[in-house]
Amino acid sequence: MQDKLTLMIPGPTPVPESVLTALGRHPIGHRSSEFQEIIKKTSSQLKWLHQTTNDVLTITGSGTAAMEAGIINTLSKGDKVICGDNGKFGQRWVKVAKAYGLNVQVVKAEWGKALNPNEIKEILEKDTEKEIKAVIFTHSETSTGVLNDLETISKHIRAHKQALSIVDCVTSLGACDVPMDKWNLDVIASGSQKGYMIPPGLSFVAMSERAWTAQKTSNLPKFYLDLSPYQKTIKNDSSPFTPSVNLYFALEKSLDMMQKESLNSIFERHKRHKKAIQAAMKAIKMPLFAEEENSSPAITAIAPTNIDAEVIRKHIKEKYDILLAGGQDHLKGKVFRIGHLGFVNDRDIITVISAIEATLHSMGITNSPIGSGINAASDILS
Amino acid sequence: MQDKLTLMIPGPTPVPESVLTALGRHPIGHRSSEFQEIIKKTSSQLKWLHQTTNDVLTITGSGTAAMEAGIINTLSKGDKVICGDNGKFGQRWVKVAKAYGLNVQVVKAEWGKALNPNEIKEILEKDTEKEIKAVIFTHSETSTGVLNDLETISKHIRAHKQALSIVDCVTSLGACDVPMDKWNLDVIASGSQKGYMIPPGLSFVAMSERAWTAQKTSNLPKFYLDLSPYQKTIKNDSSPFTPSVNLYFALEKSLDMMQKESLNSIFERHKRHKKAIQAAMKAIKMPLFAEEENSSPAITAIAPTNIDAEVIRKHIKEKYDILLAGGQDHLKGKVFRIGHLGFVNDRDIITVISAIEATLHSMGITNSPIGSGINAASDILS
Repeated sequence: MQDKLTLMIPGPTPVPESVLTALGRHPIGHRSSEFQEIIKKTSSQLKWLHQTTNDVLTITGSGTAAMEAGIINTLSKGDKVICGDNGKFGQRWVKVAKAYGLNVQVVKAEWGKALNPNEIKEILEKDTEKEIKAVIFTHSETSTGVLNDLETISKHIRAHKQALSIVDCVTSLGACDVPMDKWNLDVIASGSQKGYMIPPGLSFVAMSERAWTAQKTSNLPKFYLDLSPYQKTIKNDSSPFTPSVNLYFALEKSLDMMQKESLNSIFERHKRHKKAIQAAMKAIKMPLFAEEENSSPAITAIAPTNIDAEVIRKHIKEKYDILLAGGQDHLKGKVFRIGHLGFVNDRDIITVISAIEATLHSMGITNSPIGSGINAASDILS
Repeated sequence: MQDKLTLMIPGPTPVPESVLTALGRHPIGHRSSEFQEIIKKTSSQLKWLHQTTNDVLTITGSGTAAMEAGIINTLSKGDKVICGDNGKFGQRWVKVAKAYGLNVQVVKAEWGKALNPNEIKEILEKDTEKEIKAVIFTHSETSTGVLNDLETISKHIRAHKQALSIVDCVTSLGACDVPMDKWNLDVIASGSQKGYMIPPGLSFVAMSERAWTAQKTSNLPKFYLDLSPYQKTIKNDSSPFTPSVNLYFALEKSLDMMQKESLNSIFERHKRHKKAIQAAMKAIKMPLFAEEENSSPAITAIAPTNIDAEVIRKHIKEKYDILLAGGQDHLKGKVFRIGHLGFVNDRDIITVISAIEATLHSMGITNSPIGSGINAASDILS
């Protein structure tokens, strides 16, 4: 039904009506005092969200732009780095690092499994010459629904004393705890169309004092993604290039909502939704793709057996107007992914489970009595 | 008066209500067939606007990002380039070129004056070894209101046979004629918050076949601004990174409006408005900063004598709720700038002239009878 589609993909995520209304306001001058007030307020709100005293810089661009900025502002040509690769986005950071002539050692885990923190620990411990300048990896792997153990990996990185952590938190920030200062994280990148509950177009990068020290000697060429003028101008509640003014209006409104809900409530909500979906899928014998002990609170990938995942996904879109994500690269047709991050409530969760149950039922590909998924989910939700 | 402000700065420019409504729609999946339709349609509309058969690529970022993309996709380290510098944006492209290790020869003109095409011609003619790989410059210099002679400079570049033209058309595209194919332009960069009549956040870059040939051997490091995946994905009506979905909704709507008005009518309207403002300023003895024969149809800079331009600008904002732009860098306090590009009608023009006249009158800094500016403008407008 036209205009009735609901998004349950891992971005763009659903946007609250009040945020859309803010988005649709007439723009104002980006050098005006009125806009400075918005930068000032959102800067402070972003620090709250990142649980940090570091500046959080806003870039007009996608999450990839923010992650690239983190990499190219802190490293120099030929620097040795470790890249964690256990999914499409981990792979992407390997590509970025190689594009800039970094010396990349890849640490892999199978798609659907988490990076092994001990493997990273051992490599770092063996590096007595302190040649490794950074460990680059994703927190929540959007392509598989795996949550890597950021806290433990960060501890190993800190023990090395030289290497920086550069972390893709695109689908974890605003969905689960990412306490930048407490965990001593160096670079965190994220994007607006995820936990932030606003449309795509803005991305965010926060850097620790250690990262800023590295930035001073970084020699990789850059201009639009050079964070130095962003850092300088944010001190005056300004920005180096014309920012995406209307997305700032939306950002201010969504961060207001997030602050009202509180970080803990947001994290609990995401955890509850993940568990409800997992319980439901187990009840209807739909295999979870990611290992449960390392599953992301933002995305759940389902790997149906004996049927193309795309057939289920398309039916759910056409019949029930719910957009789920497909599998990427070699997972195409093997999994479908439920995005449950951002502006998602318990109703959305039972809705998507119902739609999956009804779809499987109509296709005759489940032996579980219809309703068993909802029943299992409802035990978690209540 | 709150929310009554009108923008007459050179970006963000006024946005039509129907475009804002489109902007405030709920986002859709950026990999959906519905979004592919929008990319397909806007791609075709963008070709119309650029008067080209080349692909026009859309980047989520500011105009600077698009211009940087044009430079770093077509050149290699150490390449010799000419940069035209007759204002803040010309200066910026010098900085970008230097940041990437290009060998830059700067051709200057005083702020307020146009680049001398003959100077560029002579340098190109002397380069018998064909070492010069590009000429980088602005068409409409937003900081001064000067329009450089793109057609003539492009002719000289083509006569050289090796060098590419890389042109900042941020405030000229959609305001005056920029026929990419007819003038044999190689790289054109522009931004959404200008003639496009939508808020900031998208930028555009179009490249000729010659530029794409150069792109194949370009060795400057890049990832987010690497145009190769943009070119590849646009063939499938897609994009390499999550695009600013809602700004595409706005773009589609504004390009519909522009097509309805027609290119010639848009250009005539901008020319008429420029002439009306120039005539009015002459009538009230307010000096025009840019030389009239090379003045931009998008921005007029006024250089009041014996009074800080900021005093006038602030009074017009506070008393009449019209936002004008100040002078940049050494022009701060020396000029104020009237943006008259994009969604601007004759009413806006007489309004801003009235506000300037009334302001000067109330400050006792004009000898012209009040109304003489409007009178002169009205002769042009009617």
